[in-house]
Amino acid sequence: MKPSSNYVNPLLTDLYQITMAYAYFKSGSQDKEAVFDLFFRKNPFNGAFTIFAGLEECLGYIENFKFTDEQTRFLKSKLIPNCDPEFFEWLKTLNTRKLKVHAVSEGTVVFPREPLLRVEGPLAVCQLLETTLLTCINYASLVCTNAARFRIAAGFDKVLLEFGLRRAQGPDGGISASRYTYMGSVDGTSNVLAGMLFDIPVKGTHAHAFVQSFKGFGDLKDRLILKGEDNKELSLLDEVLKARKELGFINTNEGELAAFIAYASAFPEGFLALVDTYDTLNSGVPNFLCVAVALARAGFKPAGIRLDSGDLSYLSRESRKMFSQVAQETGVDFSGLKIAASNDINEEVLLSLDKQGHEIDIFGIGTNLVTCQAQPALGCVYKLVEIEGSPRIKLSQQVEKVTIPGAKDVYRLFSRDDTALADIMVKIGEEAPKPGEKILCRHPFDEIKRVIITPTRVQKLTNLVWDGRILHPLPELSAIRKSVLDQLAKIRDDYARPVNPASYKVSVTDTLYKFIHELWENEAPVAEIS
Amino acid sequence: MKPSSNYVNPLLTDLYQITMAYAYFKSGSQDKEAVFDLFFRKNPFNGAFTIFAGLEECLGYIENFKFTDEQTRFLKSKLIPNCDPEFFEWLKTLNTRKLKVHAVSEGTVVFPREPLLRVEGPLAVCQLLETTLLTCINYASLVCTNAARFRIAAGFDKVLLEFGLRRAQGPDGGISASRYTYMGSVDGTSNVLAGMLFDIPVKGTHAHAFVQSFKGFGDLKDRLILKGEDNKELSLLDEVLKARKELGFINTNEGELAAFIAYASAFPEGFLALVDTYDTLNSGVPNFLCVAVALARAGFKPAGIRLDSGDLSYLSRESRKMFSQVAQETGVDFSGLKIAASNDINEEVLLSLDKQGHEIDIFGIGTNLVTCQAQPALGCVYKLVEIEGSPRIKLSQQVEKVTIPGAKDVYRLFSRDDTALADIMVKIGEEAPKPGEKILCRHPFDEIKRVIITPTRVQKLTNLVWDGRILHPLPELSAIRKSVLDQLAKIRDDYARPVNPASYKVSVTDTLYKFIHELWENEAPVAEIS
Repeated sequence: MKPSSNYVNPLLTDLYQITMAYAYFKSGSQDKEAVFDLFFRKNPFNGAFTIFAGLEECLGYIENFKFTDEQTRFLKSKLIPNCDPEFFEWLKTLNTRKLKVHAVSEGTVVFPREPLLRVEGPLAVCQLLETTLLTCINYASLVCTNAARFRIAAGFDKVLLEFGLRRAQGPDGGISASRYTYMGSVDGTSNVLAGMLFDIPVKGTHAHAFVQSFKGFGDLKDRLILKGEDNKELSLLDEVLKARKELGFINTNEGELAAFIAYASAFPEGFLALVDTYDTLNSGVPNFLCVAVALARAGFKPAGIRLDSGDLSYLSRESRKMFSQVAQETGVDFSGLKIAASNDINEEVLLSLDKQGHEIDIFGIGTNLVTCQAQPALGCVYKLVEIEGSPRIKLSQQVEKVTIPGAKDVYRLFSRDDTALADIMVKIGEEAPKPGEKILCRHPFDEIKRVIITPTRVQKLTNLVWDGRILHPLPELSAIRKSVLDQLAKIRDDYARPVNPASYKVSVTDTLYKFIHELWENEAPVAEIS
Repeated sequence: MKPSSNYVNPLLTDLYQITMAYAYFKSGSQDKEAVFDLFFRKNPFNGAFTIFAGLEECLGYIENFKFTDEQTRFLKSKLIPNCDPEFFEWLKTLNTRKLKVHAVSEGTVVFPREPLLRVEGPLAVCQLLETTLLTCINYASLVCTNAARFRIAAGFDKVLLEFGLRRAQGPDGGISASRYTYMGSVDGTSNVLAGMLFDIPVKGTHAHAFVQSFKGFGDLKDRLILKGEDNKELSLLDEVLKARKELGFINTNEGELAAFIAYASAFPEGFLALVDTYDTLNSGVPNFLCVAVALARAGFKPAGIRLDSGDLSYLSRESRKMFSQVAQETGVDFSGLKIAASNDINEEVLLSLDKQGHEIDIFGIGTNLVTCQAQPALGCVYKLVEIEGSPRIKLSQQVEKVTIPGAKDVYRLFSRDDTALADIMVKIGEEAPKPGEKILCRHPFDEIKRVIITPTRVQKLTNLVWDGRILHPLPELSAIRKSVLDQLAKIRDDYARPVNPASYKVSVTDTLYKFIHELWENEAPVAEIS
């Protein structure tokens, strides 16, 4: 399995990984058995949860990890020219066959400090993977989480489409955005290439330029013939003008109407019109309705309109009223018409529209979804937690920056009604929590915070996924998306709410708690004052 | 010339471009002669200037624009299945040979409303390019501008390094960030692949994990032998321990010192140590100095330290004092030692450090540089301004959203001392402004704002770069970077200042002004009140 981007290879890394590898090599430490944890310290967007994404890309990278001759030549000649030439020969022999990777499943709701990946193997190889793993996981998890938050804000009955390609961080930023927002529960993308690469539904209609490119009916070919239900040939232009007269919408922009006719004759089924080029309620919606009536009478099902500016709450409600009125006047069934909206929508706008009331069925979201405007980076880190069997702790003045030492697994504990109660980290070698048995869950740093849980169900979150090869077939993107939707539907309201959510409990066993604090006592210097 | 990303191809687009192409094709408008302008409406970061970037990638895309069989099969079978099959045959014949592209040179300081690209040719082809051109220009220009702002904030005598790969929007987000921040005047990157692809200087040292992986001197191979100036073999460990005793730094962390010795023996020349793993002033800097003294005595030139946490102003000043003190005590020349800093630096931090005073020579900047935290997207748009020779205007209630119709060129007018006075847009066919001749420069919308300028020098900003082929050899990245630095050095302080900068004048000729307003009068509906 190849990574999807041609950039994902051993050279997509920070130089210091390679200089460190050289120093390990020179000091003979390159093969020391190391354990690294990849985790984040704080949920993004001031939220209470994160969705883990990017695993498949990481595994593709790990599977294909191999320095080429061209790459080592470049390193040797340009970047670290005065090195022992043996290093470059050794670099070419490196591979990931001795590596073990434990990981949380892609698309799982995760929380701060939990190892998302645990990478075990020769020190130098583990170290060389750092930057690329972070690059593949940080943005993927961030934008996937953002999509999930947009989903919660918009409601599960709405259609969410990602339209962000043009505002993403270049081509692959756009591809990653489409892939991981779909994973995060968005329903489709406008990005055609992402659709082809990852089998994502692709959606879209037309832009303002299309409308502007028509000045009037003179721009229409006369052969715009529709074959209706009964196979009778109709001139769409004639039928539209008839409906227009009937409905009394005679002062609308003619270029716009011509554009709609051209578009409808290309896509008579599922006709969806962008209605705000000139004047939404006085031109766009009336023009759309003239075409929609003609199409419906010929046996086609028009799809609806898209609003791209103005007061979306008001315009959507007014448009819906006009749909009903015309349906009543003409006897055409317009109950299935959809209203799409797409102007600078973000989580706050979704929440505020929900309060104001609106008639929008479909949200097209670009910039704010893909750039993660509210917090444009997730801070996953990759830390050494054990070397040659002995645990390493990274101390810090800030307690939230202290790492949890040693190799550990994560379990999720569920209540009788199958809601997640807490996660618990368990030292490797310790017994796993069991359904129906009491377990003491402790805050890793705060002595006072303890709780005894008797879980009805226990789920092991970290599982061996790589042991010299990919161990299990990877799930399809659509299956991961479904699992995200399932988890979001079950997430407790107090964790899901957009503002000031409650914190989910991420705990450690009593054994791990004591282990951390003993190590802390031993390693932290005691200041002396005299 | 190929685009650098494998994703840059005709399918990297929004679906609506393709459905529009189909509707153009069905209505017979596909070959109408169209003119599109690519421009932005507002400078990013509340600033007064923008740097245009992404042109080379756009030209690579245009040069290789061709739908493959696989792509049209995908479109036909999956996305628009009920279309006239002739469309897909026609799609495969499309190319960019009839296209003309006028563009501003990459790396030019540009301003709102100026066309950065003017794309002329068959309507459907012009339309199909929209999304990809925007994708290649929006982020490139945004992050290039961000880098230029960081440069102004840090000062031209400082070294700026981009360290953002792990926090970018996936792999290509990271590659684009390295490429365009270097263009925007940064001095180098940590990203090895970007270095190889674009010939950017690559920099880096080591991480905390390297330091943590050493517990003590026992982890050092005994063969850490240095050959000094006089070719005498020395044990680096012995020499360091000698210096340590001499300097009295005996309580520092031994694992850290071992790590520094290992790193220095791998890189005796240019040794740079990360000093904040345990305690910057009580362990990191003293340990560095022991190794630095030993290296210097053996004839090597140590490079300096990196600070990655804490109060950078204070720590850099204290570290510098310790350098001087040890230099004085030992007689070693430490005047060339550099201090690098790299913790969550953004434009504000740079400005505030400048006020507080500091001793930092090198800034390593990651997240905030590449994600453009202060404004994560640039809003370039691509608008139809002319079709079949007749101008198109996009009206809007918001005056700043009104497009400037018709094909036009942009000129920059310079004063006697060669500072830019204003830019002026000139309708195609109008006479160009000439040095020494008066020209009336008008605000495009505000009747009152007019000024007569007699330029000493006139620079044409928009030039024909594509006419069925790339017309001129494209400049090297390093040459573009140099031109950015030259422009930044000359930019007037009131435009460059980070807060509330003055607005640079972007004007139109009197002819173009009248043309816009006549069109406006004709096209805008007059509301009737009774």
